[in-house]
This record gives sequence, C-alpha cells and structure tokens, in this order.
Amino acid sequence: MESASKTASLDPLLHSLGFEIDELSPTRVTGRLKVTAICCQPFKVLHGGVSALISEALASMGAHMASGFKRVAGVQLSINHLQSSKLGDDIVAEAHPIKVGRTMQVWEVKLWRSNPSSSENKVLISSSRVTLLSNMPVPETAMNAGDALKKHAKL
Amino acid sequence: MESASKTASLDPLLHSLGFEIDELSPTRVTGRLKVTAICCQPFKVLHGGVSALISEALASMGAHMASGFKRVAGVQLSINHLQSSKLGDDIVAEAHPIKVGRTMQVWEVKLWRSNPSSSENKVLISSSRVTLLSNMPVPETAMNAGDALKKHAKL
Amino acid sequence: MESASKTASLDPLLHSLGFEIDELSPTRVTGRLKVTAICCQPFKVLHGGVSALISEALASMGAHMASGFKRVAGVQLSINHLQSSKLGDDIVAEAHPIKVGRTMQVWEVKLWRSNPSSSENKVLISSSRVTLLSNMPVPETAMNAGDALKKHAKL
Amino acid sequence: MESASKTASLDPLLHSLGFEIDELSPTRVTGRLKVTAICCQPFKVLHGGVSALISEALASMGAHMASGFKRVAGVQLSINHLQSSKLGDDIVAEAHPIKVGRTMQVWEVKLWRSNPSSSENKVLISSSRVTLLSNMPVPETAMNAGDALKKHAKL
Repeated sequence: MESASKTASLDPLLHSLGFEIDELSPTRVTGRLKVTAICCQPFKVLHGGVSALISEALASMGAHMASGFKRVAGVQLSINHLQSSKLGDDIVAEAHPIKVGRTMQVWEVKLWRSNPSSSENKVLISSSRVTLLSNMPVPETAMNAGDALKKHAKL
Repeated sequence: MESASKTASLDPLLHSLGFEIDELSPTRVTGRLKVTAICCQPFKVLHGGVSALISEALASMGAHMASGFKRVAGVQLSINHLQSSKLGDDIVAEAHPIKVGRTMQVWEVKLWRSNPSSSENKVLISSSRVTLLSNMPVPETAMNAGDALKKHAKL
Repeated sequence: MESASKTASLDPLLHSLGFEIDELSPTRVTGRLKVTAICCQPFKVLHGGVSALISEALASMGAHMASGFKRVAGVQLSINHLQSSKLGDDIVAEAHPIKVGRTMQVWEVKLWRSNPSSSENKVLISSSRVTLLSNMPVPETAMNAGDALKKHAKL
Repeated sequence: MESASKTASLDPLLHSLGFEIDELSPTRVTGRLKVTAICCQPFKVLHGGVSALISEALASMGAHMASGFKRVAGVQLSINHLQSSKLGDDIVAEAHPIKVGRTMQVWEVKLWRSNPSSSENKVLISSSRVTLLSNMPVPETAMNAGDALKKHAKL
C-alpha cells in the first residue's frame, strides 16, 4: 500500500488507473499496473493512450528529478505499440534517460506485459521517447511542485 | 448530458476525466474537456499524457468507423505539445484522417485551449499523428466492440 | 537555373539530389524535386530517407529565418510516409511553422507527388513534424551561417 | 573498398555520402561514415536529415531481410537528435529490430560519433524508431529488388 499512496501523491491520474510507482531516481523510474476494464479499449486490450500516459508521466517525474527540481515540460512524445495486452495482465514500466542536457532531456520508456496465469516470459509491449525542456524556472504558483518527489525519491 | 453518457459507453477512461465526445463520423471526431485537478501534473498545467490519451482515443474511434467496423490497432503515436493549458481551461479536440488505406490509416488530432474568463482566441496546444493498422478481422471475444460506435455515429 | 544555384548555396546535399528551393520566408519554405534513380530504394520508389532529409532541411531553413538568424538545431523529427512515389514523379514540398516560440519551434512539412504523364491530381505522400531548439547564440566558427539565407530569403 | 562497393550496389544514395555498410543480417545492420562537407548544414555540423536518411536506409535493409525478401515499406520514422557531430568526425550506425511481426516491423537505429583526434569515447548522437509494413508481395517491376542484399547479407 505504501506504493499506492506514494503514487496518489505523485500522480493522481496514474493512481486512479491503479498504477503503482516503485523506483524513483534521476536515472530510473519504474512502476506497475494490473490491466483492469477502465484501462481497455473496446477490443478488450490495453488502451494505447494508457501506455502513452504512463510513458509521459514516468519520463516527466524522472526529468524533474534530473533537472534538480527545476521546471520541466514535455514537448514531444513518440511511442510504438508493439504488442497488445489484455485484461488481467500485469504491466511493468521502466523509464531511463538517454540524454540529460542543460536545456533538453530525452527519456526512453518501455512497458512489458506478463500474464500471471501463464508461463510466458515478459513481452515488450511499447517503447517510447519523451523529449522535455528542462531547467526552467519554477513559477511562483507551483513552488511546491517537487515536494512529493523530494519526499519519495532516492536522490 | 447526452454527450456525457455517450462518452461513458464509448470510452470509459475519457469519460472518467470529464471528456465529452461530440461529433462522431468516419471523417471527423470531436470532443471537449474542462481541465480539472485530476488532468494536471504537479506544475498545475494539463498533463501531457492526457493530451496523448485523448489523441489516441479519438483517432482509434475514427479509424474504427473508417474501416467499416473491422478491428483497428494503433501502432504509433507522435505528439507535439505546443502550449500549456491550465486548471479551468476549456479544451476542444478534433481528429481527422490524413490517410485511410486498406492496411493502414493515419489520423491527425489537434487540441486547442480557450479560457472562459478571458477574451483570448483558441490556441493550439498539441498536434499529433496516430498510425493504425486497420481492416483486421474482429476477434470472437469482441464481436460487439463496435456496438456503441454504431449507435452514436453519424455514418 | 536561378533556383538550382540558390539551392546549391543553401543546402548542397539537397542540391546534389536535384532538389530546387523556391519560396524562402520565415513563414513558408517550398521547393520541388524530380524523382531520379539516386532518390529511389530497391523497389524503385522514392527512398523514405529522402523525404525525411527534405523535411529536416526545409524546416531548419525556415526556423533559422524565424529565429532572426540565431542558431537553431533540430531535436526531433517524426514523419509519416503515406503514399509511394516513383521514378519520374514530380515532388513538391512545403514547410510552415506550427509554433514559433522563444526556445522552441515546430514546423510541419508536407510532400506531394504528381505524375507529369497522368492527369492525377497531386497526392500527399508524407507529412512530418520537426521540433527545433532556436534562438541559440551563433558560434564564432559559423558567423556566416545565415549569409546564403539572408541573400535569397524574402524577409 | 569491398565495403564501399557493397554500399554502392545496396544504396547508391548512402554511397554518394561516403557511407559504408558493414554488417548485414536480419537481426543487425551496421555501417560508418566520415562526416564531410556535403553532410553538414550551415552551422558546420552533421545535417539532421543525414541521420534520418541513414536510419531509414539501414532499417529498410534489415526489415527486407527479416521479411524473407518480401516487399517492405517504411511508414513512420521518429528520430531524436541528441548531440551534434562536426566535420571530420567518424560516425558509426547500428540498426536492430525491436519487433518483427507478420504485418509490421519496428527497428531501432542508433548513431554514435567519435573524433579521431581526441580521446573522447563514442557518444550517442541520435536514436530513432522506424516502423515498416512487411511481408507484402514483390511487384513484377522489382523482382530483383533483393538481389544485392542476398549477395552481401549474412543470412
């Protein structure tokens, strides 16, 4: 439950889907999701938009830490959906930086599925690149934007 | 409310965010969203993942109709986040096809913001391209995948 | 020939492919190409890499002008190849900005084909988005980087 | 020189830039390039369009082999330019598949630079994803499209 409450404070939208954040550091952000009905599109497989949402969210948290808690803003997301995932599957997600520059960061985010009732190994279901502007001044209206991250991250 | 209940049956996840689908046809899908707290990231602006989710969702519905209710599957999403949008803004979204081929479709999705308490004209906040495989057989387990669309679409 | 020599001074690589730049302004860059053997891949259709190269090149010139001849650098290119184009086709290309910000610009580039020996209307063959950092200082080693553009552009 | 003549027969456009293909297999395609003037944009760094061209070319050759020499067609390319590379740098490129499906393939292509006159380790300069339709029938007009690949590839 510690993971669930951590996610609630870090990203309420991910939390509402049942996503749980595990690792949190400037070089690696991970988490997991059980695929429930709300996460599926009409063909009863994981909604591609959920994979995109997870990718953008994990990359943003990672970039926020990697910029020393300055403001970051995603400017581009490209995601390839490689395999489908169905109701009941367990998804694991992992984000890591491929560039941490002064102005710009690029993070790669991968999602894998595994089916708890099968012996199948985990299968890569999507791979994305998130491009973010970083090191921007934190606006007055969001001075506490990094508080939840600072509390939970391993810096 | 008719729009809200339509969205609930078509895409429960979009509905949970407060998104409402308006037009639904094989050449145009539109909708709107009031930006609430759940849609925002810690800097109190619209979560880029929400824009990606909306884009993937509208393009998928459109492609599903344009393929004559065969199965479609998003394979690639590329989105540019152009401007931020803040709590309370009204977002409008519009998707249209730029290619409807036998095997492949590509849809463009644009999102604009307008602020109800200002006189600012609507501003483009994101632009995306969604690439989908189409015309695939509908699996036995999802024979009714197109029912909600058929009920609400203008074909 | 004026167009050819203009291209030679602006982008020698485009020129080597036979591409000719027409309009040059901070809000619109256009050009055209006759598809020759060097531009084709083994299936005798336009090499997708050529479409990407043209897109990156036109967007970069446009962004360079739109930033007031400060330094620009492409950070992301996403291109959808929509239709093929074959040997002998005439290609026209057009780039325009969808965002010109202080730090970042995003340009859209479209390519169409027309076949001189058919009555077919022009067909969209690719659509791309180029994301560029802009307004960066011009390095000492490239103080004349904008000279050819300044000579030929309509500012 | 064997590498140069191999490239001339496989991809005349890459050859014209001085690119040389090394490994050629359905699971890995590699090559290298010395950055010359024709490959540079006005700021005297590697033209981003060249990186895109190399990526599309290597992925296409790899996918062509991996589809058993059926026809393939690139449908989407997304590339992140991470670092610049200057005149005289040595570029190495490597492509490998991240999905080889019946209908669709996705290849990742990475480019690194190294400067022969410095002790700097090789630096990642771009990372791309190429999405291709595969296993399509070879048209009558291109029955020999795979000949050069079959001659040089390690299958």
